[in-house]
Amino acid sequence: MTKIARYETTSGVFYGHLEDNRLHRMDGTPFGRMTPTGDVDDLHTVRLLAPVQAPRVFGVGANYKAHISEMGMATPVRPMLFMKPSSAVTGSGDPVIYPREGQTIHYEAELAVVIGKTTRRIDVAEADRVVLGYTCANDISERVIQKEEMDQGCLLIGKGFDTFCPLGPVIATGLDPSDLRLEARLNGQTRQSSSTSDLLFSVPELVSYLSQAVTLQPGDVIITGTPSGVGDIAPGDRMEIELEGVGTLVNQVVAEGEQTGA
Amino acid sequence: MTKIARYETTSGVFYGHLEDNRLHRMDGTPFGRMTPTGDVDDLHTVRLLAPVQAPRVFGVGANYKAHISEMGMATPVRPMLFMKPSSAVTGSGDPVIYPREGQTIHYEAELAVVIGKTTRRIDVAEADRVVLGYTCANDISERVIQKEEMDQGCLLIGKGFDTFCPLGPVIATGLDPSDLRLEARLNGQTRQSSSTSDLLFSVPELVSYLSQAVTLQPGDVIITGTPSGVGDIAPGDRMEIELEGVGTLVNQVVAEGEQTGA
Repeated sequence: MTKIARYETTSGVFYGHLEDNRLHRMDGTPFGRMTPTGDVDDLHTVRLLAPVQAPRVFGVGANYKAHISEMGMATPVRPMLFMKPSSAVTGSGDPVIYPREGQTIHYEAELAVVIGKTTRRIDVAEADRVVLGYTCANDISERVIQKEEMDQGCLLIGKGFDTFCPLGPVIATGLDPSDLRLEARLNGQTRQSSSTSDLLFSVPELVSYLSQAVTLQPGDVIITGTPSGVGDIAPGDRMEIELEGVGTLVNQVVAEGEQTGA
Repeated sequence: MTKIARYETTSGVFYGHLEDNRLHRMDGTPFGRMTPTGDVDDLHTVRLLAPVQAPRVFGVGANYKAHISEMGMATPVRPMLFMKPSSAVTGSGDPVIYPREGQTIHYEAELAVVIGKTTRRIDVAEADRVVLGYTCANDISERVIQKEEMDQGCLLIGKGFDTFCPLGPVIATGLDPSDLRLEARLNGQTRQSSSTSDLLFSVPELVSYLSQAVTLQPGDVIITGTPSGVGDIAPGDRMEIELEGVGTLVNQVVAEGEQTGA
């Protein structure tokens, strides 16, 4: 099992293997060949970035049984899929911007799949072969807009605002995604606590299903839905998404304009 | 007014200015600086490519009044937005693959906006400043899956299959998009014939609306909805989408597997 971080130092942007708060800097990316440069960076002196740059993000709605109940949704007959624009992606430690239009905005703890290989029409039994690893996602959602959009049959803006898709802190390889503990904490209080064993459509089923239509590409990210316990955020809140075997994705909510002093 | 093509020759992939079937080859891309190399290619000896490589494609549903009627849809209260994955994008002259799951697949003639500048929260009155130009899109849609997905509130697979988003043949700059003739022909017969003046949400309104949430990036494509007259395609069919001032996007429908002899 390896933990792969993408990060920025004064020397540039790098991938590295994380071991005991030390980042072993690599040439290349995890989607090709990575070779150690010999440099070692201290985790606490770098800026973590989303582990994939500007990925395609495929989202899945209503995919945990208890969340389907709390949202009063019907159980999907096929995976409910949408995309979040790459401009929504941000890293651990970065602010999540609460937009001016925001009325009811929720955090959503999710397991994110990072695709490692180009693939189309892969079987469920083979799907783990095209997965590079897993990371945490926070599928931030403006519920008022989301509901208006979904009532019309499509979904983009409610989940698509800039910074509405924190990913990180690392990609963990070699995990079995079938029963990983997944938690969300808001200002230190546990709000979501579940296991990926409660997924309606499992990780291999989602990878296989999506690949029936879409050629998956290295770096594609599938965020697999959120368990029950979603709730409101407000500027000033600190969100933590923790996935067993991966680590904790931390983001602070900041009102639009405030991050630049405007 | 300029027509910009992206194309492949035995020497590589280039952008070029199209004049009288001659392509004046450029260094660079239309999203930065382009300078003529002095080489000229014959349009009939090159392979046209989608005018943007692997763009983010933002789609708009139910945006022509007569199409809303023919589909029996409600008039949207806000633009119905979804994304088509970049793997769906293909160029003029390329095959559109009719997938094994296909039951009822439709062509959809659309005006496509190509964004030229990074922008967020642009006003309607200023939106044309961030548009590089316009091209034709064919928003291929599998209606059975699309309906099942939209009944659940999200949309991806029905419009997301590989090759379901032909774009081209060129980007035309300097056009006024408010009243352009838009046509679809199937095997030479006119099936859609309308004007962008019948758009429910206009091009500047769509650019502005989307930019309220999403930082638009050079190369982003917005496909703006289709007029009435959509209909079935089948393997062997030849689709032509013509947009006044741009040209004609031509694609043949091929059954999955046949294009590789499998």
